[in-house]
Amino acid sequence: MATLDESQSSLRSLPSPRRLLGPGPSNVHPDVLQAMAHPLVGHLDPAFLEILEGVQAALRAIFGSENRFTLPLSATGSAGMETCLANLLEKGDRIVVGVNGVFGGRMVDVATRAGAEVTRVDADWGLPLDEQAMAHAIQSVSPKVVAFVHAETSTGVCQAPGPIAKIAREAGALVVLDCVTSLAGIPVELDRWGIDAAYSGTQKCLSCAPGLSPVSFSDRALECVAARSTPVQSWFMDVGLLDGYYGGDRIYHHTAPISAVFGLAEGLARVLDEGMKNREIRHRDAAAYLVESLEPLGFEPLVAEEDRLPMLTTLKLPPSIDQRGEARVRRDLLDAHGIEIGAGLGALAGNVWRVGLMGENARRESVDALRSALESELARKD
Amino acid sequence: MATLDESQSSLRSLPSPRRLLGPGPSNVHPDVLQAMAHPLVGHLDPAFLEILEGVQAALRAIFGSENRFTLPLSATGSAGMETCLANLLEKGDRIVVGVNGVFGGRMVDVATRAGAEVTRVDADWGLPLDEQAMAHAIQSVSPKVVAFVHAETSTGVCQAPGPIAKIAREAGALVVLDCVTSLAGIPVELDRWGIDAAYSGTQKCLSCAPGLSPVSFSDRALECVAARSTPVQSWFMDVGLLDGYYGGDRIYHHTAPISAVFGLAEGLARVLDEGMKNREIRHRDAAAYLVESLEPLGFEPLVAEEDRLPMLTTLKLPPSIDQRGEARVRRDLLDAHGIEIGAGLGALAGNVWRVGLMGENARRESVDALRSALESELARKD
Repeated sequence: MATLDESQSSLRSLPSPRRLLGPGPSNVHPDVLQAMAHPLVGHLDPAFLEILEGVQAALRAIFGSENRFTLPLSATGSAGMETCLANLLEKGDRIVVGVNGVFGGRMVDVATRAGAEVTRVDADWGLPLDEQAMAHAIQSVSPKVVAFVHAETSTGVCQAPGPIAKIAREAGALVVLDCVTSLAGIPVELDRWGIDAAYSGTQKCLSCAPGLSPVSFSDRALECVAARSTPVQSWFMDVGLLDGYYGGDRIYHHTAPISAVFGLAEGLARVLDEGMKNREIRHRDAAAYLVESLEPLGFEPLVAEEDRLPMLTTLKLPPSIDQRGEARVRRDLLDAHGIEIGAGLGALAGNVWRVGLMGENARRESVDALRSALESELARKD
Repeated sequence: MATLDESQSSLRSLPSPRRLLGPGPSNVHPDVLQAMAHPLVGHLDPAFLEILEGVQAALRAIFGSENRFTLPLSATGSAGMETCLANLLEKGDRIVVGVNGVFGGRMVDVATRAGAEVTRVDADWGLPLDEQAMAHAIQSVSPKVVAFVHAETSTGVCQAPGPIAKIAREAGALVVLDCVTSLAGIPVELDRWGIDAAYSGTQKCLSCAPGLSPVSFSDRALECVAARSTPVQSWFMDVGLLDGYYGGDRIYHHTAPISAVFGLAEGLARVLDEGMKNREIRHRDAAAYLVESLEPLGFEPLVAEEDRLPMLTTLKLPPSIDQRGEARVRRDLLDAHGIEIGAGLGALAGNVWRVGLMGENARRESVDALRSALESELARKD
């Protein structure tokens, strides 16, 4: 534990800029940073509420939803996950969770803490969930909620949400979707897919600072929350209380993180300016270029092309990296080149890297910088 | 519900600057705003972790504590409250809560949702808690936890924490203290008072943006969490999981809100530069000047001088304000003078104003601006 004197000097030692090519956060556009630095106003100030309404409308647009209850939760994506699950689940409720990576596993943990009876349907990490296995579990369990991940950040796998959501709805379940890494990178269509509750984060393809979690609930999900027989275990994440403020009555619940919302407003304006179609094309182009550029160095994608996310690519490591020690190479990339990439998580730790080309960073220029840094590291003799 | 087109234009309509003299947020120093606008780095970047360690050390200093577990929680003060109560309480545990305003009442709600058996000890709003009544409840209930508010933002009352904490500890209870509005404005001495868990917010006397909640747990409180027979109901606020990252092992839990931590680091550096003694004197001077300056206009403090907080003064309204409608005058202060002050909350709604002179705003200059704006509003004939 550092002393105060030792630590006091570090309070102002802000780091040099990095190129953030890991699983998030991604680099934030200077306009978004400047919006965060705008002088503060109050959380009940009409001028702030107007911006907040704009943010809520823009979030509806990129969530592909008309859900009235759509808002930037005042905490990170994991709190968004907990908000969805802890509001929809009461003690003893059944849930089926698809697990093919860290974040599906986290849903199991969060749902268990909410008192639910959890049925998990596992798939190998690097593969999508098996729709038949999900259907089988849903039909035999008859759950209140079915939950899974759209873009699994720990593996780079993309799950098509429509088919599983359809099966779940036909069985009378509510559907929860993790959109942390997908939102603003590839199309999200909550209403078309039949999703009842979804959450995301601001620090991935939205290219804003971490700290907010866009969350959306369908009216059907809100009715389910209103019909609970016990209070939601979390006061901070209680959807009914949140709706008192974000729903338009502006009843004080907690102090909204004004500066972060200013930043998100600018980030969303940038997404709308570009258009989701262009944004998707840009993400897909950068990802294809990444795979093509690193293949000559011996990197191989973990995930088959048809299941591969564009904004997060998991790469199996060549022997040249193993020999130097993958952690050491990552550290050298950061120290000598200012480039951050992500380690493998959980079952994949030590075996893969996770390269994120998210939001502002989804450009060929990011890939060129990474390849050139890698080439120089691999050429070093020490 | 606004359409996207209508709302899109509002995303970039950042408001004109305000003088924030309500119950928080307070104005943020330009250096803090600029720190938030510093380019982002990752939450596992050694350069960020060094700043985070500095923040944790500085928080220990202003909390008056050597508590190892001291950190900026990635959510607002209400989440800090929930973190303290939901970790320390299991279903059926007994808690005594002192209630003399909105935030004591909120503690009752949060503790109830955690499954606790809550004994509330009420005092009139505007008065401190009665130590005898607290002692009586503590002795008859033998609670696991005793919780109360240091600086009640809804009334402006300051509670001396030492005496109640002593009674609670002698009865074998853990003590939870709400320091949302007190921290960095008046001395907080967790260790000297015998407090086991405390929380604050960044948007009051720290004069940073809202969005983080400084939280501190004693080793005794951590042992209590470790000895739980059931998991903490919240994954996001689980102290054991938070400790995996903030305790030094840097195990990924959630993505820390980097930009907000940069801002807090600068805010804390400013507090340490000034020194808590000077800061307290500045807050007390500004508050005394406020009362003295507004008395000629007919405003009277709700709280007796010996129990009055310096950073938040609750003022009973003179007939001149009642006649114009207090909400209308507040709106005119905001629209015509750019000054935000706070309405009464709960039992005091409509009867009082809450004037905050917090952090950067605890200066005579703020008072002069408010008095002059009030004089001009009261002189208007319409």
